[in-house]
Amino acid sequence: METNRIRCPQLLEKIISAEAAAQMIEHGHIIGVSGFSPSGYPKAIPLALAERIKKSNSPLQVDILAGASTGDELDKALAEVNGIRRRMPYQTCTVCRKSLNTPDGIAYQDQHLSLSPQNTRYGFYGDIDFAIIEACAITEEGGIVPTTSLGNSPTYVQVAKKVLVEINTSQPVELEGIHDVYVPLDPPNRQPIPILKATDRIGTTYIPCDPEKIIGIVFTDIPDNVRPLAPLDDTSRAMAKNLIDFFHSEVAAGRLPKNLLPLQSGIGNVANAVLAGLLESDFTDLEFYSEVIQDAALDMVEAGKFTLCSGTALTPSAEWLKKFYANLPELKKTIMLRPQEISNHPEVVRRLGIIAMNTAIEADIYGNINSTHVMGTRMMNGIGGSGDYARNAYLTIFLTASTAKDGAISSIVPMCSHVDHTEHDVDIIVTEQGVADLRNKCPRERALEIINNCSHPDYRPMLLDYYERALAATAGGKGHTPHILSEALSWHTRFTENGTMKK
Amino acid sequence: METNRIRCPQLLEKIISAEAAAQMIEHGHIIGVSGFSPSGYPKAIPLALAERIKKSNSPLQVDILAGASTGDELDKALAEVNGIRRRMPYQTCTVCRKSLNTPDGIAYQDQHLSLSPQNTRYGFYGDIDFAIIEACAITEEGGIVPTTSLGNSPTYVQVAKKVLVEINTSQPVELEGIHDVYVPLDPPNRQPIPILKATDRIGTTYIPCDPEKIIGIVFTDIPDNVRPLAPLDDTSRAMAKNLIDFFHSEVAAGRLPKNLLPLQSGIGNVANAVLAGLLESDFTDLEFYSEVIQDAALDMVEAGKFTLCSGTALTPSAEWLKKFYANLPELKKTIMLRPQEISNHPEVVRRLGIIAMNTAIEADIYGNINSTHVMGTRMMNGIGGSGDYARNAYLTIFLTASTAKDGAISSIVPMCSHVDHTEHDVDIIVTEQGVADLRNKCPRERALEIINNCSHPDYRPMLLDYYERALAATAGGKGHTPHILSEALSWHTRFTENGTMKK
Repeated sequence: METNRIRCPQLLEKIISAEAAAQMIEHGHIIGVSGFSPSGYPKAIPLALAERIKKSNSPLQVDILAGASTGDELDKALAEVNGIRRRMPYQTCTVCRKSLNTPDGIAYQDQHLSLSPQNTRYGFYGDIDFAIIEACAITEEGGIVPTTSLGNSPTYVQVAKKVLVEINTSQPVELEGIHDVYVPLDPPNRQPIPILKATDRIGTTYIPCDPEKIIGIVFTDIPDNVRPLAPLDDTSRAMAKNLIDFFHSEVAAGRLPKNLLPLQSGIGNVANAVLAGLLESDFTDLEFYSEVIQDAALDMVEAGKFTLCSGTALTPSAEWLKKFYANLPELKKTIMLRPQEISNHPEVVRRLGIIAMNTAIEADIYGNINSTHVMGTRMMNGIGGSGDYARNAYLTIFLTASTAKDGAISSIVPMCSHVDHTEHDVDIIVTEQGVADLRNKCPRERALEIINNCSHPDYRPMLLDYYERALAATAGGKGHTPHILSEALSWHTRFTENGTMKK
Repeated sequence: METNRIRCPQLLEKIISAEAAAQMIEHGHIIGVSGFSPSGYPKAIPLALAERIKKSNSPLQVDILAGASTGDELDKALAEVNGIRRRMPYQTCTVCRKSLNTPDGIAYQDQHLSLSPQNTRYGFYGDIDFAIIEACAITEEGGIVPTTSLGNSPTYVQVAKKVLVEINTSQPVELEGIHDVYVPLDPPNRQPIPILKATDRIGTTYIPCDPEKIIGIVFTDIPDNVRPLAPLDDTSRAMAKNLIDFFHSEVAAGRLPKNLLPLQSGIGNVANAVLAGLLESDFTDLEFYSEVIQDAALDMVEAGKFTLCSGTALTPSAEWLKKFYANLPELKKTIMLRPQEISNHPEVVRRLGIIAMNTAIEADIYGNINSTHVMGTRMMNGIGGSGDYARNAYLTIFLTASTAKDGAISSIVPMCSHVDHTEHDVDIIVTEQGVADLRNKCPRERALEIINNCSHPDYRPMLLDYYERALAATAGGKGHTPHILSEALSWHTRFTENGTMKK
């Protein structure tokens, strides 16, 4: 046990076992946890709690407020024993997903990530009983030094009645200094977020915490459970190429500076392909002001292409993790972890002029985007931070392959079966087929732009046929956004019935 | 002609007739105009242009970028002669509405109001040929003193190649000093908007303008064409009462301060009823940080209930206008007009913790809101500023009567036929039936809250029946947001076919 990681002497006596910590938690408790994507989440205490629930004769369910998703030791372990009553604000766990898509399952609230901390402070989610925070060290004054994510930890520590800390010795103490912890005051006392350049540091390197509030410290060495990304495929590469060509044309038109503006990129294979494409491009001196820092972003840092790399979570592959730890002092000059309230803050996003790049499940012919619900009803993961960026960005871009399920699903549909981002928020749609530029276009113009540039050739005639019949039905002042409502969602019902959207 | 309103001597020689000004405009020109709601828009030049178009043998169409809607002398006059090719970002004109809902009509782009000025500066709408700005005076240095609205005028003056000014002598010169003109720099050079309190003044009282850019000054005395509001009805009063009861309960729960937080309120009869309700309530020391200042807001100022009343447009009734002009020096201490980029700025909205109150055309059982499209296709007015506020507010509230068309339409539907505000952005829905509090609720909980508290009793059993069947269909992990897609929009198609949503 590396007790030297606890630099506040009075806290040494708070070291307890994970089982003892789990024993403090009661049915109905509301718990704020560290963690954002599978990084920096507590592991030993949730595992012990799951064990306790498994053996318990009486019901024991808690509400879990996290930063975003977490890893298997938390969401999966607790969901498997039916230990989660309510979950907020994002998840990616297969067991949680099954439950929250079921009538009596987890009550899941799919929430804009930047809103989740302030709504917590406002009391919208009730009184927080515990904060459980993974740390790599505790400072002399009791300050908690987080690990590979910051998420909502600062707010949960601030508002929770009691704090449990998990010191994870698999996380190097050298992470100290990578974080920039800042919690805004709430209205009517809030001040401007003092970030003028993406590189500005505005806070502390630890989460301030009254040592009295820390009622237990648990040691663990379970590593972050980061899943490997699939290798890049041709479709993702084609999408990335289309997007980068678009950036070139915007620079040529004088609408973007040569080094673009700070980039935000969603997670997953498409986002990875976009960054890999930028790595091969002639763009330099770029800034990354985003949520999750994955391998492709680290490659950009290593290549000197990103002069700044700011996120709220770090999820390197096992391979990059080794390189990361070996070069921590150097990498810390460029990489910064912020609370998600700041990495996603509308004020900062608007001021810096972020270019927001996120993936869609489907887009409709007018530019509405579904990011969350398969066939309108089944939750995949959640909206995450995409809405924080999309509404306030300089340019809002959504990417999707033009088809899914081996062509049985068209990602361009007459009408989205669920809307997470409205036509008002979407500037650019990119598929492997091409780019639709929706700026300064009315719905009729947008429909043709999207169908002709982005839809798959197998579905293009079907989409044009729908659009033309819908347009004809609006003659004489009947429609700005032509639709045939009785048919608008028929592509989805056809897929559900026949296994394909094709006729 | 009150030439003493032109205090910059070199500009006296620029006085021309409206006809001469209209003669400068060519087919395809992009024109940015002052005006927001029927106030402060140019009148003489658009009327002269419409006359010219009527007599012209060759096509003459222009793109009109405004602040929001304008009055009949602009939108209606030009639309009647088919003089508008493209229109942005909001409108309320019956002639425009018919055209933009028709396949070959006006290409209307329904845009978040706060985005329209920055997107103009970014070049997304092309090069602006003319700014036509209504003014009450011109300063010694050529600064343009606006009249009853500020809208996007500062940006249009900044980017237009040439500026035409309409000095409207029906607008008193004493308006000078009511405006607070501030145009942010664009990324990567943007600074924090320095508003810390709703009362802060941050800019100039005039729109800075190089006198060389002003190529014509036209005098007119046509007054703003403000339409009277309907008298308050019982439904609006009941909605206002429900909302104010909710405010009381939030104060009691400690989630709002006693004087609430700065209020934003949409326009129209419902908004008027809410402010009338607050006038009769025991709330005091309120602040109004909104778009349009109508009679009810002025009543609040007169009663000393609003300590600050900030908007981007003033549309008093004829009766209040007289009072307004008679008490201008006193009223200017409390009333302020800002550019819509600032009145609606995400940064300021989030920092001040605005309570956003806007009206909906329909809401669905999961909390999605349609603000714009009747039966999914026909544009009513536009999203206006509601999205600027809704995404970034402390609390986002939508109000609607539970039925429309004498009960033939339920404003609570299984699925919105068009989505302008997603479930992620909506905290509270208010109808005359009651209040649905959607905070910290998953979709299944939200559905029951909305159906039971907000829907009309005539439609409640139908909504419950739909919801229960949809819920049953999601057993076994099939749905987070239960829907039967083949039926989700059937209420709208039934109305279109039968004239009622009732079965």
